[in-house]
Amino acid sequence: MSVTVLRLGHRRIRDQRVTTHVCLVARAFGADGIFVCGEKDGGLLESVRKISKKWGGSFWIEFVESPVKTIREWKAAGGTVAHLTMYGEPLLGHVGAVGQEKKLLVVVGAEKVQPEIYKLADWNLAVTFEPHSEVAALAIVLDRYFGGAELTGEQPEELGAALKAKIGKQ
Amino acid sequence: MSVTVLRLGHRRIRDQRVTTHVCLVARAFGADGIFVCGEKDGGLLESVRKISKKWGGSFWIEFVESPVKTIREWKAAGGTVAHLTMYGEPLLGHVGAVGQEKKLLVVVGAEKVQPEIYKLADWNLAVTFEPHSEVAALAIVLDRYFGGAELTGEQPEELGAALKAKIGKQ
Repeated sequence: MSVTVLRLGHRRIRDQRVTTHVCLVARAFGADGIFVCGEKDGGLLESVRKISKKWGGSFWIEFVESPVKTIREWKAAGGTVAHLTMYGEPLLGHVGAVGQEKKLLVVVGAEKVQPEIYKLADWNLAVTFEPHSEVAALAIVLDRYFGGAELTGEQPEELGAALKAKIGKQ
Repeated sequence: MSVTVLRLGHRRIRDQRVTTHVCLVARAFGADGIFVCGEKDGGLLESVRKISKKWGGSFWIEFVESPVKTIREWKAAGGTVAHLTMYGEPLLGHVGAVGQEKKLLVVVGAEKVQPEIYKLADWNLAVTFEPHSEVAALAIVLDRYFGGAELTGEQPEELGAALKAKIGKQ
């Protein structure tokens, strides 16, 4: 069972802190790594890698040029894609099905998301129908996907293994 | 059953987007309103009030001078206080008790939190022991407090009432 995150439309100055929060949430809530699209940002890469090294685990971060290409390749390799958007269907109606996926890409947007992403996604999921935060939406979806295993109080270095063990799957 | 949020140490330039996310998560996940401490920020107030007006509900935002004073007054009025910190106790061990609180103040920090806050809080709760985001921590705690009622897909204007009805309490 594995989750990777795709962060769309990063802007170097304006989004640095919010994208950093997205990355750290991805890591703390059990994702393997994150693809970031948008403006190249060496400071973001360095900051996330530094924190990952200090706190343990094998979380990775990588810039990609085209989100559409990344999603197509993900699907071609047998993965499925959940795009989080307030214009999607309510999360609770699909959380059971999404929770069965063994190789899931969770896509979180920035200001505007191109229509192609909605079409390519297997699910467009709304974490409430209200405007709030991609940081929160990602946390809620990962929390449901892993059944709250990240909240049990395991030590940091055991987190990845603990999440996998608690959900009883690979 | 009611929750208010207290955001500590807001800095006008550096934190504007993250604090906005904190406010919008507070609103979307069912809090009544938010107290913000730190640098006065008219742009933040205006932005959150504008979104609240557009999307409906009675969510409020207010600047306060002293978090310690606000917390003391909250407790004197019979409320309880949950401070979210990665140095706290695991959330899952306390979520049942916290979920019983009828008048809860959820405190989320900034870079550094003064020791007084830890002492005054009824709970210091860790949403994972990893560094991530106050935006995510707040969403997870409100989601657990309201038992996921915010994820059912009710329309925005029904959100406050729906949350209260779903949890079967006032």
